[in-house]
Amino acid sequence: MDNAYFMKRVLLLARRGIGKVHPNPAVGCVLVRRGKIISEGFHERYGGPHAEINALVKADPALLPECTLYVNLEPCSHYGKTPPCTEAIIRSGIRNVVVGCTDPNPVVNGRGIRKLRNSGISVTEGVLEPECRSLNESFFHFMKHGRPFVTLKAAQTLDGCVATTGGESRWISGSGSRAWVHRLRAEQDAILVGICTVLRDDPELTVRDRAGKRRPGFAPIRIVLDPRLRIPLTSRLVRAADPERTVVIAGPGAQAEKRLRLINAGVQVWTLKTGPDGRFRFGSILNRCAGKGILSILVEGGPDTWTSALSAGFADRWIGFISPRLMGEGIPVLGDLGITGLKKLIRFERCAWRRSGEDILFIGERPCSPVLSKK
Amino acid sequence: MDNAYFMKRVLLLARRGIGKVHPNPAVGCVLVRRGKIISEGFHERYGGPHAEINALVKADPALLPECTLYVNLEPCSHYGKTPPCTEAIIRSGIRNVVVGCTDPNPVVNGRGIRKLRNSGISVTEGVLEPECRSLNESFFHFMKHGRPFVTLKAAQTLDGCVATTGGESRWISGSGSRAWVHRLRAEQDAILVGICTVLRDDPELTVRDRAGKRRPGFAPIRIVLDPRLRIPLTSRLVRAADPERTVVIAGPGAQAEKRLRLINAGVQVWTLKTGPDGRFRFGSILNRCAGKGILSILVEGGPDTWTSALSAGFADRWIGFISPRLMGEGIPVLGDLGITGLKKLIRFERCAWRRSGEDILFIGERPCSPVLSKK
Repeated sequence: MDNAYFMKRVLLLARRGIGKVHPNPAVGCVLVRRGKIISEGFHERYGGPHAEINALVKADPALLPECTLYVNLEPCSHYGKTPPCTEAIIRSGIRNVVVGCTDPNPVVNGRGIRKLRNSGISVTEGVLEPECRSLNESFFHFMKHGRPFVTLKAAQTLDGCVATTGGESRWISGSGSRAWVHRLRAEQDAILVGICTVLRDDPELTVRDRAGKRRPGFAPIRIVLDPRLRIPLTSRLVRAADPERTVVIAGPGAQAEKRLRLINAGVQVWTLKTGPDGRFRFGSILNRCAGKGILSILVEGGPDTWTSALSAGFADRWIGFISPRLMGEGIPVLGDLGITGLKKLIRFERCAWRRSGEDILFIGERPCSPVLSKK
Repeated sequence: MDNAYFMKRVLLLARRGIGKVHPNPAVGCVLVRRGKIISEGFHERYGGPHAEINALVKADPALLPECTLYVNLEPCSHYGKTPPCTEAIIRSGIRNVVVGCTDPNPVVNGRGIRKLRNSGISVTEGVLEPECRSLNESFFHFMKHGRPFVTLKAAQTLDGCVATTGGESRWISGSGSRAWVHRLRAEQDAILVGICTVLRDDPELTVRDRAGKRRPGFAPIRIVLDPRLRIPLTSRLVRAADPERTVVIAGPGAQAEKRLRLINAGVQVWTLKTGPDGRFRFGSILNRCAGKGILSILVEGGPDTWTSALSAGFADRWIGFISPRLMGEGIPVLGDLGITGLKKLIRFERCAWRRSGEDILFIGERPCSPVLSKK
């Protein structure tokens, strides 16, 4: 049983908080004595105790000085919603701490580890560091770039169509792919669509299980880009509006009366400037979301919204479900990106292709340009 | 060592004739005595001796009565370019024959097996039958449907573009995928492209190895659909024209002078009627090819040609290389197929997805409608 073995268990525990601890990172913790786990804990909900505390309170205090504490993220050293974990660890008498990666949050950023070491605790860093970083990808991204991690997700035919010319798009991908989308949504802080997608598909943008039942506790913020407030009051999104989690972004010229009606229906209406083309700049959408503590956004359509995110350089990941069917003429997945030569095509890093029923799923990441991520 | 073991060896031998025995099927043969292969042969070139003869002549005649002969296709019973193999087998004294599948050619079609049995030879049929049929897929298809097996092959971006709006398409797929295309070409009787692809890419449509050298012996017939004879005399296809293997299909109204110049340059010019839209009907192209003994056609572009083959229902297989890049606006892989609802999308059977470098390769087959395959 080596450090990596116990860190894997920590990661499994941490995962159980995903979708519930936002905007905090997901953290797990195990206490190991003589090669055996004697206590476990994870950060269960935002505002609740941290993983370390959950693990410590369950253990016999007399055994703690003989324990090693494993945690995927550096313990916090500041007073936030809860007192600092470093103090609890020091008080517990634990002599050894193994940390997956440091916390990039400027109020921690190495201070937690330093505090432990200054108290004579031996700290091992960097165990399964890539896995630990990837678990809280959007948290690390947000801390580094100051904006949410943006995933674009499309379901298309082989020949790149997302809907028929008549607007029919349900369903292009298979049921296995759609179940995958619900798992993806569960990990996101927000889901964003353009108004055309609402008018065409009237989506709910909820997180459901395989049986189609809503998964309790998972409710990413649903955001609609709607410069002229065309969203019908009868749409599913408005009818099931939750003021905490349903947002329509309107342009400055949107009708005041419609704005009021939406607010009365329980929708948050944010106002953002539009460009000369009547559309929002994707960068200002991200800035507004960042200000609201949104660390990750899943952009589920449509072509205009994907195109604007890609053109602005704010697409961090592309997830494409490709169905093995041909449509011929239809609504293409993307509009004009201003690309003229093959050398300028948008390329991805860490590309992966996965089978999903009869579909194939593509996942690729874009290198995040520091210039583009400037606010 | 069972029958399947030796039939696998037969198939390996047969494969060595692919691309060289056209329009004959690829056939291999082994002679087995007391569990050991004592002689092997395959059909090496059109007009040359059949596999059975090549195996028989290499064996010691004294041992033959103790041998079992394995062959993937029923031995022929008629005089063609060579005398019937059944006679040679009967004369050899062989007592056991194992056959992969019967020969659908109406002049054979069970007669060969009956002849052997009538001479007291024990014949086992149907060993690895699916594999034996698939080895000579286009031969079986041609015998059943009276027209060539049509494979459409496209290389596209994730978002379904085959070229930039400026016409740049080299190269969208990776080098591994392009090597795969050359292996695919080597198995085809003909490669067909529309004139737009010639004008845009000036392709050679040759079979090359990984190092870019032409593979000797592999030279599918190259066919260009060119109703108005726009093909430049300076194009690579015309400059490297081989009268046996370079064909331009012209409309009835094509300029007589250009026609003569092409013929003088070593190009065969076939004439076909065009429809009211100035294009050929895909069915009449296939009929003409069938008449020339072409059993398989690889359609390498462009969008108009693929669209017309699909619309007419004459696409038996779709091979799509998808590069993990995005183009936005470009030349889409397909034009209008007249599909209005999602239920009418073109679906494939026996779908397979394979990695090819960073690309993914899709292979799907269309069920062949007996009505559509009528001449």
